[in-house]
Amino acid sequence: MGISLRTDVCNSLLIDGLMGFFITFEGIEGSGKTTQIALLAQSLTQSGQRVIQTREPGGCKIADHLRKILLDPANADLVPTAELLLYAAARAQHVAQVIAPALAAGAIVLCDRFTDATSAYQGAGRSLDRELINQLNQIAAGDTHPELTILIDLPAQIGLQRALDREAQEQTSSEGRFEREALAFHQRVREAYLELARQNPQRFCVVDGSQSLSCLADTIWQHTTRAMAYRGPHDL
Amino acid sequence: MGISLRTDVCNSLLIDGLMGFFITFEGIEGSGKTTQIALLAQSLTQSGQRVIQTREPGGCKIADHLRKILLDPANADLVPTAELLLYAAARAQHVAQVIAPALAAGAIVLCDRFTDATSAYQGAGRSLDRELINQLNQIAAGDTHPELTILIDLPAQIGLQRALDREAQEQTSSEGRFEREALAFHQRVREAYLELARQNPQRFCVVDGSQSLSCLADTIWQHTTRAMAYRGPHDL
Repeated sequence: MGISLRTDVCNSLLIDGLMGFFITFEGIEGSGKTTQIALLAQSLTQSGQRVIQTREPGGCKIADHLRKILLDPANADLVPTAELLLYAAARAQHVAQVIAPALAAGAIVLCDRFTDATSAYQGAGRSLDRELINQLNQIAAGDTHPELTILIDLPAQIGLQRALDREAQEQTSSEGRFEREALAFHQRVREAYLELARQNPQRFCVVDGSQSLSCLADTIWQHTTRAMAYRGPHDL
Repeated sequence: MGISLRTDVCNSLLIDGLMGFFITFEGIEGSGKTTQIALLAQSLTQSGQRVIQTREPGGCKIADHLRKILLDPANADLVPTAELLLYAAARAQHVAQVIAPALAAGAIVLCDRFTDATSAYQGAGRSLDRELINQLNQIAAGDTHPELTILIDLPAQIGLQRALDREAQEQTSSEGRFEREALAFHQRVREAYLELARQNPQRFCVVDGSQSLSCLADTIWQHTTRAMAYRGPHDL
């Protein structure tokens, strides 16, 4: 993959007293989050760090049950408010059982989607009330906020095509409730992500998802080490 | 059962233009809600009314999935905030798919537990923030409020013993997460219900759950016809 590990930089940043670091990955379907999380986790682990990889919705037993309900195309009749509350429920469980304890134990947590996904998908995608979404994000996540959010940006058409190709290749269709939404839905989601990045420039890094896997991994590695360098050891 | 049907009274109240009537039943485990709802439904149906019997958590396909998660003793690690959000999600779906459409079509809806159960169980039982509970009840139920709430009151020890006996008799234990709570939990829930009744005297009728089934059914019938008599035909 040609990823420069730069273990020297990483080690110097992650020594004594650094109490956890929370990184979230965001992007539309097919943006390549899963692959990039795995690559970053590998690099961080190889440099001696303790890394927890997780995802939303899901990440623990009860939240995984909820993930199945949320992503199952058979539940197309799920009303938007119930969907929003289900995401919040899954998040509350995930934060309490996985993310917060891992951060408290000093691990680096890499999470595939978090509160920004709710803002983008339910806010822009489903046109639900932003204030309500913010309220529920706050209830579910409490004081657990990402310090770095990697937004892998990609035109909706390309991302969606990738997601559909992957589904065809894996011969799965059980998790495709969002893939079935119209292109315009995914375009609104992409725009909402970019708007969130503009509103939170210190936390967000927007990276170009159309790069090669290895270039993208290298870019993400650089953003990660830089973000950790800016964070003192006692900020959490 | 010796229930006086009083179909004359009922018919005169429920003719032309009455747009739905929403009645909720509340009470601790083992208070006899299920039996009494069935008896009231039977009486109302026999007097020519269209009745929908439903329950929470559950009442529709997606909410029934959530019911299983909520009541399964295997999910004892469900954290209180996630539990609260799950109840709200199930309620939002149930209101949108079942209760609101039935009321709009002019039916009488009898629901086993609703928002007051969340206030009593999660508020007093689990000591969750009341303001948060009210907020989530409002998000989930919207403008769909019960016009009459029958609280079947019973000492916690008696109710709990009944629930455990029933479970032993039915050889089921799959829905016993709340039965497993300590007696003090159920006593707090009972007190919280009585406090809600004191705060909402126009909506609540508190009935004595230690009466015989038929006496209790007759009392509930009287409260129901009286509440409907007070309600004009165009209040909803």
